Amino acid sequence: MRTAGRTLDAPELLTRARPRVEEALRRVAATVRTELPPALAEPMVYSLEGDGKRLRPLLCLAAFHACGGPADAPGSCDIACATELIHTYSLVHDDLPCMDNDDLRRGRATTHRVFGEARAALAGAALIPLACRTVERGAAELGLSASERAALIGELCRAAGAGGMIGGQLLDLQAEGRSVELPALEAIHRRKTGALLVASLRLGALAARAGRVALAAITEYGRAVGLAFQIADDVLDASGQTEVLGKMAGRDRELAKSTFPAVLGLEVARSRARAEAEAAVQALERAGIDTPELVALARFAAERER
Amino acid sequence: MRTAGRTLDAPELLTRARPRVEEALRRVAATVRTELPPALAEPMVYSLEGDGKRLRPLLCLAAFHACGGPADAPGSCDIACATELIHTYSLVHDDLPCMDNDDLRRGRATTHRVFGEARAALAGAALIPLACRTVERGAAELGLSASERAALIGELCRAAGAGGMIGGQLLDLQAEGRSVELPALEAIHRRKTGALLVASLRLGALAARAGRVALAAITEYGRAVGLAFQIADDVLDASGQTEVLGKMAGRDRELAKSTFPAVLGLEVARSRARAEAEAAVQALERAGIDTPELVALARFAAERER
Repeated sequence: MRTAGRTLDAPELLTRARPRVEEALRRVAATVRTELPPALAEPMVYSLEGDGKRLRPLLCLAAFHACGGPADAPGSCDIACATELIHTYSLVHDDLPCMDNDDLRRGRATTHRVFGEARAALAGAALIPLACRTVERGAAELGLSASERAALIGELCRAAGAGGMIGGQLLDLQAEGRSVELPALEAIHRRKTGALLVASLRLGALAARAGRVALAAITEYGRAVGLAFQIADDVLDASGQTEVLGKMAGRDRELAKSTFPAVLGLEVARSRARAEAEAAVQALERAGIDTPELVALARFAAERER
Repeated sequence: MRTAGRTLDAPELLTRARPRVEEALRRVAATVRTELPPALAEPMVYSLEGDGKRLRPLLCLAAFHACGGPADAPGSCDIACATELIHTYSLVHDDLPCMDNDDLRRGRATTHRVFGEARAALAGAALIPLACRTVERGAAELGLSASERAALIGELCRAAGAGGMIGGQLLDLQAEGRSVELPALEAIHRRKTGALLVASLRLGALAARAGRVALAAITEYGRAVGLAFQIADDVLDASGQTEVLGKMAGRDRELAKSTFPAVLGLEVARSRARAEAEAAVQALERAGIDTPELVALARFAAERER
């Protein structure tokens, strides 16, 4: 698959899914603006806007569809959006001065640069309970039973929490300035990036009431795609351009972060990312899941240009 | 009711409830230590320890009991603890340098003074999904149906989020250095303190499957107690001693915060707190709820010495 600059060249379902995700995010943003104090609603909405890849919601919807969920099922987009809310929380906090101290994100000034640190910290934290409510609302609209709904919320909270993404944020921060070997680097990113990517897929699969075998295959796919995605992220940071990335290129070197290109070399890292994407696809094939969308997303994760 | 310095002079159920809450919090802490990366587990556990009043879990358990829940029901303490996890998140973030920049909390150095800002910010955020999982686990152990469990999680997330406590944290911060009139001050604290106190009580009532009338009375009680609690907090900040409070006295003046004593005068503020506590008790009496525990807690909220 070739990625065409800023867009994702992908099967029809994905090109239709992207605007649906954006529309669902706009609905969430509109609710935030209506129901919440403006001082907090503004930085929350700002952080959700901008030119995001929306990879997590797209993975969620693709997994939902791959496991037999009907395209355009009401509620599925809300479940998908919840993963983007959690992801956005992590970006807002990662960018804070006490963390990576970044100025640019999704092609715009970071949230704390526009609204100040306190509003950014609070708006970021407020995205977490909002995500829980959004997944609950979507799951109810989709007609899932209360126990299925509780399982979805549990999945999201485990992935977001200290044992998942937030734990990974800290491990990543603590590794700055230290030399980290490949297994430790993989362990950091299994948490920081991998946990939420896997959860995004599993939420989609669970929402479609996937069976045990399909769920295991989707999980294995997610672990491999998560690694491919992070390696590609590191490669782009080392070789990409700020204008294309929409965030500062070369930050890993500035912050003395251990990265896959630093540990493996740029070319080996690139081919490792491709290999992980193929492993992901094979996990689906072995389980007999036919899904051009997840195949396209795996290759996009590994070979993207932004 | 007289409060005896550092302890709460209260009916027997409460004196038994406090150690149960501490024990449940120690269980949560033990799980955190076992399951989570130490770099994050340490600040999370640290922030939960210390000499807290545990008012929210006590209110939750008292409401549970007042609405017919059996004392010592398994799971009820986990639900109660979830409210303390959310409260502790708010303390950790409130104390950050970009917020109130406090050094002392619960008689000890604040979390970011011990572990640094980044670890404190992440540990604080990680308490939110942990709270969601804890309430879900407690509700399941208590034998609540999946739809009742989902209602509890929704209640907690709404109270914690941007429309509740987190929104209140920001309003409070933005009011620093500005003169605020009584209605605006009440609106701030209805969110910042009130939302989670009300939710703590409602969680207990819902866990006991309270009827409509009892739930409404518990909610009305919570709103009045929340106000009484915050007025007493302001009075203590203005007149109390750092060693007794376990946090810096006089911080409101330093930060130029609008407070109830500043707006009403110290004596009027004190009597307003007592009046709110009495209004809270009357709401219960009107609904025919006989609960020495909630009566004692209302008076403690208004007349406490720390």
